[in-house]
Amino acid sequence: MCSDNPSGADNQQERPGDEQWAVGFVDGEGCFSISMVRDPGCRLGWQVQHELSVTRAASSRPALELLRELFGCGSVIEHSRTDDHREPLLRFSVKRGADPVTTVVPFFEERPLRTAKLRDFERFAEVLHKMQAGEHLRESGLRSIASITETMSRRQRSRHLESSEAIRQPPRADLEVKRWS
Amino acid sequence: MCSDNPSGADNQQERPGDEQWAVGFVDGEGCFSISMVRDPGCRLGWQVQHELSVTRAASSRPALELLRELFGCGSVIEHSRTDDHREPLLRFSVKRGADPVTTVVPFFEERPLRTAKLRDFERFAEVLHKMQAGEHLRESGLRSIASITETMSRRQRSRHLESSEAIRQPPRADLEVKRWS
Repeated sequence: MCSDNPSGADNQQERPGDEQWAVGFVDGEGCFSISMVRDPGCRLGWQVQHELSVTRAASSRPALELLRELFGCGSVIEHSRTDDHREPLLRFSVKRGADPVTTVVPFFEERPLRTAKLRDFERFAEVLHKMQAGEHLRESGLRSIASITETMSRRQRSRHLESSEAIRQPPRADLEVKRWS
Repeated sequence: MCSDNPSGADNQQERPGDEQWAVGFVDGEGCFSISMVRDPGCRLGWQVQHELSVTRAASSRPALELLRELFGCGSVIEHSRTDDHREPLLRFSVKRGADPVTTVVPFFEERPLRTAKLRDFERFAEVLHKMQAGEHLRESGLRSIASITETMSRRQRSRHLESSEAIRQPPRADLEVKRWS
């Protein structure tokens, strides 16, 4: 949980059914993503990044702020591009450290999505549980995570799997290994 | 209400909070639209069309069917184009006759949308109430409706307002005048 954000319980603006509204809104506009990016600061040379994001025009800021209050974490930031109507775009994003696994994952495990986005969420949650167990710190775990990301909606070939020489590099013991647990 | 569709009350698949989920889903993916199209079959030469639609890939059919069950009307039809992943697209649509004004409008008046889409809904509802009162059958009413449509999200110049010669044509008494009430 993020200590600098108000918790859902304390927010006077919430109304009954807010949680199911959030499920529907994320079913409509949410994006669960896992990406693997090269990072020489990581022992295996790759960092696994995870994000739940919802992007809307700035005039819908209250809806994005409500998501932040319901999850008790995340941030609402201005996007670099505008929408078709030239209104600034805002992005609600949860991606820092352990936030998604302690907030987003249990939220949607208790309140299932109803569109095909459920499958993306299940893969997202599977990766986050693997990371919580430290699997991303082993080459076999990274490969497993890369294989899962290829089955998510974007359906792009994993750069990690295409660059297998990278994961055969010897571990660099002098670099910090980041893990959440 | 559409007699050929199951009502929400009879549907065993519904769960508590479905209505708020629907509000969130429409906040995310729904589109309220009013369009005015030339129609020589209408007395004033213009027909006012109204629609709530939600378009998703075919793998999310159950979510669209749930909307149909909740509203107790509408249809789920296959779209002519596919999405980026070449999956067929489905469109949940409510546009026939009096359905929107007796189902969609009260639904969202009781359960307000939380994004800027609320403003589109309010204009959509305003037009439907005007049509229920028969205002679209008078030239002044048509102009008023055309002005409202210009304030909706698509922000296109109304063809009706740009073609004012059309509404100055004398009424054709021999043609049927359609109205809901």
